Amino acid sequence: MASMLKGNAVVGQAGGPTVVINESLVGVIQEIQKYGHIEHLLGARHGVRGIINRQFLDLKRQPSQMLDLVGRTPAAALGATRDKPDQEYCEKILDVFRSEDVRYFFYIGGNDSAQSAKIINELTRDVRYELRVIHIPKTIDNDLLANDHTPGFGSAARFVASAFIGDNLDNRALRGVKINILMGRNAGFITAASVLARRQHDDGPHLVYVPERPFNLDEFVNDVAEVYNRYGRCLIAVSEGIADDQGRPWAETAALSHAEKRALDIDEFGNVALSPGAGALADFLSETVRQRCDGVQRVRADSFGYIQRSFPLARSEVDAWEARLVGQMAVSYSLDADRDGSVALIRLPGTTYAAGTQLVDLSAVAPDAAPFTRELDDEFINERGNNITNSFRNYCEPLVGELPGVGWFEQISQKPPWSA
Amino acid sequence: MASMLKGNAVVGQAGGPTVVINESLVGVIQEIQKYGHIEHLLGARHGVRGIINRQFLDLKRQPSQMLDLVGRTPAAALGATRDKPDQEYCEKILDVFRSEDVRYFFYIGGNDSAQSAKIINELTRDVRYELRVIHIPKTIDNDLLANDHTPGFGSAARFVASAFIGDNLDNRALRGVKINILMGRNAGFITAASVLARRQHDDGPHLVYVPERPFNLDEFVNDVAEVYNRYGRCLIAVSEGIADDQGRPWAETAALSHAEKRALDIDEFGNVALSPGAGALADFLSETVRQRCDGVQRVRADSFGYIQRSFPLARSEVDAWEARLVGQMAVSYSLDADRDGSVALIRLPGTTYAAGTQLVDLSAVAPDAAPFTRELDDEFINERGNNITNSFRNYCEPLVGELPGVGWFEQISQKPPWSA
Repeated sequence: MASMLKGNAVVGQAGGPTVVINESLVGVIQEIQKYGHIEHLLGARHGVRGIINRQFLDLKRQPSQMLDLVGRTPAAALGATRDKPDQEYCEKILDVFRSEDVRYFFYIGGNDSAQSAKIINELTRDVRYELRVIHIPKTIDNDLLANDHTPGFGSAARFVASAFIGDNLDNRALRGVKINILMGRNAGFITAASVLARRQHDDGPHLVYVPERPFNLDEFVNDVAEVYNRYGRCLIAVSEGIADDQGRPWAETAALSHAEKRALDIDEFGNVALSPGAGALADFLSETVRQRCDGVQRVRADSFGYIQRSFPLARSEVDAWEARLVGQMAVSYSLDADRDGSVALIRLPGTTYAAGTQLVDLSAVAPDAAPFTRELDDEFINERGNNITNSFRNYCEPLVGELPGVGWFEQISQKPPWSA
Repeated sequence: MASMLKGNAVVGQAGGPTVVINESLVGVIQEIQKYGHIEHLLGARHGVRGIINRQFLDLKRQPSQMLDLVGRTPAAALGATRDKPDQEYCEKILDVFRSEDVRYFFYIGGNDSAQSAKIINELTRDVRYELRVIHIPKTIDNDLLANDHTPGFGSAARFVASAFIGDNLDNRALRGVKINILMGRNAGFITAASVLARRQHDDGPHLVYVPERPFNLDEFVNDVAEVYNRYGRCLIAVSEGIADDQGRPWAETAALSHAEKRALDIDEFGNVALSPGAGALADFLSETVRQRCDGVQRVRADSFGYIQRSFPLARSEVDAWEARLVGQMAVSYSLDADRDGSVALIRLPGTTYAAGTQLVDLSAVAPDAAPFTRELDDEFINERGNNITNSFRNYCEPLVGELPGVGWFEQISQKPPWSA
């Protein structure tokens, strides 16, 4: 313990919200409260932007009661950012770190944030400023490399599975074709979670389309017609990021199919903001079904939108526990190991679900070459590329927690007495 | 009790789902299980359609354990319909009632269903077929006349309020303008429920637009700019049914503003299906803000869509209790009173919230002349028509139940020590 770096610490949050991102923040605060070698824990408002603007909150002496409440609150309590620091930006960060004697930097976020942490880390090493940099994983997309799964995903998956439980019953009560567009540009994990809603053999989602497989419009029309003929209804889960076999996103095609082309909104990382366009994708797919699937009378489409990542009632307790854990472990790793890295969630071997952590290199989560993010395993997608396997269900179920029960009369009464 | 009509009973469910519609069904079943004068309770599959097609389930001897599970399950367990019986349809219903010796008809639904019940009731009176007809209220829209509120609304309001708690925190963490389109063609109750999300003085929704007031695009742009200048962000709740001062729905204008005009989907009651168009309204309003509000950098829009009416985790326990109650009271009224009608929920006077029921005439809920449905009270809407008052909040809060708590660091630390 003699080698412990003395000084202050900074913690920040970045990227899109999750329901449990504050659990990780609280985990960092709780652990640091136990130690004397860190004088102040500075909470940066809106991530790296709060560092260069010197907008900090003092977090070390927050009462535990308040921390518990903040932990239960969705979306970054410190505020988030999508800024991605370049060299100049990082030098400003370093100036602030020097002047505030910051020796620990904890950054909670997805792979963009891991990338930021890596750049800062490299710069401080170059100029020989001693700084521990620990990245703490967070993303509803579940697309971080080197992780079995990511804090935030379990709650987003719980939202989606619960919504599909209700929507499947809605579709059963008022029959027709229903299409739901889910979050996920490159990874289909959130969309795949919809299959956890299934209880009976004929429950939806009946079809699931993820970005990992090219989406062919003719095959889609055939798939829908086939399910509709079998069940008299069809419930469909579609990732916003589905693309054709040329890699062109269907959300773009859908948006551009309106003659009045909408200005595509592009974020700081060069990503087209798909969620507004997800409405166009929903409309495009439902119009396609209306025009090309004979006999289908009622077609509806929704895009679940941003509430997938912040809905407080869909908090998964497993997810919350693990989000707290990775925050605590970040502090623990910063003390014991003389190296920087990212806290990765791993699944422990055994018959019942258990998770643990390990510290991996920042480059394992933010590599220099593709693949930069994780996608659905091949074994999670069926051969035809229009559904999700039980293997995924086994993987995902423990992360989501117990889902609401469902009852139906067919369980006990198929044939009423007077029809005999 | 000597006057009790002997025979069978039919119960059916109609219209859009709610999270608690099965509680009313279970309420009917539970009560009828106590009496011998009703031999069979026939559950009609898909409402009146199941009657003329003789698709019934025998519900009288269902085990209580199963009933409790069905009660907790969203969306009509018997299946629903949007059929609205005309004279010929009603004569077919009467034929079935005669041949099955049906003497009690319980119909769970909104004002269209009350209308159906009224027509059937008038026909049976004309032909002197003795039948008790009781309508049981259900609608997320909360727009039934003669009711303080309607079973199904509390849970939809709980979904919306919870979603806005999360989305407000999302908007606070990643600042910008966010527009959410909510259900409600003619009544703004669901949209108004978004204000229950507010905790701090600067919490959203900052602006709320309901169908009860004409929506002016210029005023909207000014409102958004004003809020954005004050808070650096703006969260907005908009009913899908907002219309201009000529009564023309903005969802139609938005849909038609795409040169490729989409085929408007019209349901059996002559209503344009607005929810698919709600995506177009979301896009239209966000494009308007992007083009006309200077300095606004990030604009997002979502349409909450169909999951508002079926999300199982947003069940309000008060709502569930009352939905059970109206089902039970329907049976009770059918025994005691020699008249038909609709079970209405009333609020009992007193300092704490309590509700009761009374049997009102079917024509009170399904009148022959306008107004056919209820709208937001004038005192629930502010003078400028862009927000919701505390009076509504007091009205709505008891129906929704306790909402998730929210914590933030500003509560205890405005000024960090090193900035002194």
